[in-house]
Amino acid sequence: MKDVIFARAKEKGEEFVRKIKGKNPVFVCVIGNSETGKIPGLSAAGAVPEITDLTPPADVELLFYGECKVISEVPMTPDGIPTPGIITMSAQRLSDMPLFVVDGGVRVKPHVPYIDVGGKPGGNILTGEAVEDVEEVIERATLTGKQFAKTTDYVVVGESIAGGTTTALGVMVAMGIDADGKVSSSMPQNPHQLKTETVRKGLDAKGAKAGDFEDDPFGAVSFVGDPMIPAFAGVVMGAAETKPVIMAGGTQMCGILSVISKIAPKVLENVAIGTTRWIVEDKTADIVGLVDQIADVPIIAANINFSNSKYEGLRVYETGIVKEGVGAGGITLAAMLKSEEITMEKVLEEIDKNYQELLNKRQAKRA
Amino acid sequence: MKDVIFARAKEKGEEFVRKIKGKNPVFVCVIGNSETGKIPGLSAAGAVPEITDLTPPADVELLFYGECKVISEVPMTPDGIPTPGIITMSAQRLSDMPLFVVDGGVRVKPHVPYIDVGGKPGGNILTGEAVEDVEEVIERATLTGKQFAKTTDYVVVGESIAGGTTTALGVMVAMGIDADGKVSSSMPQNPHQLKTETVRKGLDAKGAKAGDFEDDPFGAVSFVGDPMIPAFAGVVMGAAETKPVIMAGGTQMCGILSVISKIAPKVLENVAIGTTRWIVEDKTADIVGLVDQIADVPIIAANINFSNSKYEGLRVYETGIVKEGVGAGGITLAAMLKSEEITMEKVLEEIDKNYQELLNKRQAKRA
Repeated sequence: MKDVIFARAKEKGEEFVRKIKGKNPVFVCVIGNSETGKIPGLSAAGAVPEITDLTPPADVELLFYGECKVISEVPMTPDGIPTPGIITMSAQRLSDMPLFVVDGGVRVKPHVPYIDVGGKPGGNILTGEAVEDVEEVIERATLTGKQFAKTTDYVVVGESIAGGTTTALGVMVAMGIDADGKVSSSMPQNPHQLKTETVRKGLDAKGAKAGDFEDDPFGAVSFVGDPMIPAFAGVVMGAAETKPVIMAGGTQMCGILSVISKIAPKVLENVAIGTTRWIVEDKTADIVGLVDQIADVPIIAANINFSNSKYEGLRVYETGIVKEGVGAGGITLAAMLKSEEITMEKVLEEIDKNYQELLNKRQAKRA
Repeated sequence: MKDVIFARAKEKGEEFVRKIKGKNPVFVCVIGNSETGKIPGLSAAGAVPEITDLTPPADVELLFYGECKVISEVPMTPDGIPTPGIITMSAQRLSDMPLFVVDGGVRVKPHVPYIDVGGKPGGNILTGEAVEDVEEVIERATLTGKQFAKTTDYVVVGESIAGGTTTALGVMVAMGIDADGKVSSSMPQNPHQLKTETVRKGLDAKGAKAGDFEDDPFGAVSFVGDPMIPAFAGVVMGAAETKPVIMAGGTQMCGILSVISKIAPKVLENVAIGTTRWIVEDKTADIVGLVDQIADVPIIAANINFSNSKYEGLRVYETGIVKEGVGAGGITLAAMLKSEEITMEKVLEEIDKNYQELLNKRQAKRA
């Protein structure tokens, strides 16, 4: 277990790991997009706002096909820093994990099979009108989670949405969690002040203030959340009624956890957050301090480290860029726990290999 | 096994049953609709054309909720003859089978989670332009089938679409199968002549004739099929690569079988048709004669009989109305094979009970 970091509630985390070791999970990726993600300076992707509509479908296409269809190349910055989906893709391939996509609400539909739960693309939280049909989406996603629980030993749920830490912050602040300055960022400079102001303005727009939605998770998500959150929460609630669930992601998971803790707190006995070393070591954020306020859920991290990668585009993850996404940390844990043959070394090799393939494809397309 | 009828390829059928006995299946219902289903006289539902758009979503809502949302009552004729979905619902509840919906292309979306595979509602085969994007839908549905195969012991696939035997006839005739006069009908008087003429006119509209699409299943479906067919075929092809699959339906299955037999004939080793006694005893049709021409696939039927039901609306099934749909026969077989506690007597009791509940709900809504 040298590649597993127990970052919170160690004993519970170890018990959770014992329950799922050697078992067969299903991976569910929940996608969404919002106008919030397009606010300049908030997200790495915000510099080119249209990209925030394309990254989530491109991420799940990458998982299914090893290449993307909604964009001609792969989700990668011009200087070659790839989407964390490359980690997800590598862990999924090594473990041959079954793969499903849930559409929480995206403007551009992926060219893959996806489960529609009635979600629509999200608005801008500055308007205080962020997500439509929250209860309906939660209900349908819960039904979906129940079906997965019947077919598999446990469920790993990941997400792809831009601007997601700001909307997670929104939900937590609305629900009275002391979360300012505690969410992570995909950028090395975490724009906490801008995130905090954005959330405040969104609450202002509805004449509300921090904590007003302490017992109204539906309202919190509707006004200052994003469309990934209710779909993700529903899948977790449906599945965790009967089976273990890894909520695969960083501080965004805490917004979802707040929602679940008010609707179905009992299911959280079956839940762990699975993430990356980059998140639990993030000095600009505090995932443990967030979870402490919400529910006694373990945080388990894959001890992933790109320092020795052959590729600069991957090594740069060690400078604090990207950190997590597309369920990267949680699915890496699940892959390693599925089979002892899948070691962290194997995962890192596979990532290097897949990254080289993506570079080759990019080269070929440009030629 | 007194409640299982081996109607074709008995030995293969028995072997298939041995493979799946006691195992855990997933049930997938593929829905679609087409303008073909609205041709007067072709389908029981054709008398009220708008109903053909509503029945498939209503059927899957019935499975998830025990009641419908797109219509205020349940799919039932004014004189109380219920959708075969009531059989499906009863078998699913007794066996607690996981349930997924694939949208092959419906005009009215169901209020349940459903898997989008890129399908669109179908046209009228009289125009020779019946289904869009056939190859793309098959590709995505195949990916979906592969994921199900990874999570479960075997897969049961059913369907709901109006006018489906005419479009199945269309595909078979286009592909050179001698199918005229051999497909079943949901009505006691099987309108063979109208079906045959409709298919001929559809082929005429494209300047084609019977057999022209012998080796072009994509063309056959595009011109004279319906949108359920490619989605259903894809799910079967993806799943049957590695796991047994019950194609749950009547003579419509033969159109799908024709398509699969040209794209991935090898997977048919893992396939059986699962249907009802009403289909294999249907004197107005010939499912065995159809399968004989296409592939050596067993036909297994649930020996279901409503003669002793307490309710006239169910007993009337014995006069040759309805016969099959929503995977009723196949899921009944799967439920009985999952657990010896689920006998045909239990299934019939459950159907009577659920029918009474539906009547009560109808009564309550009208009051």
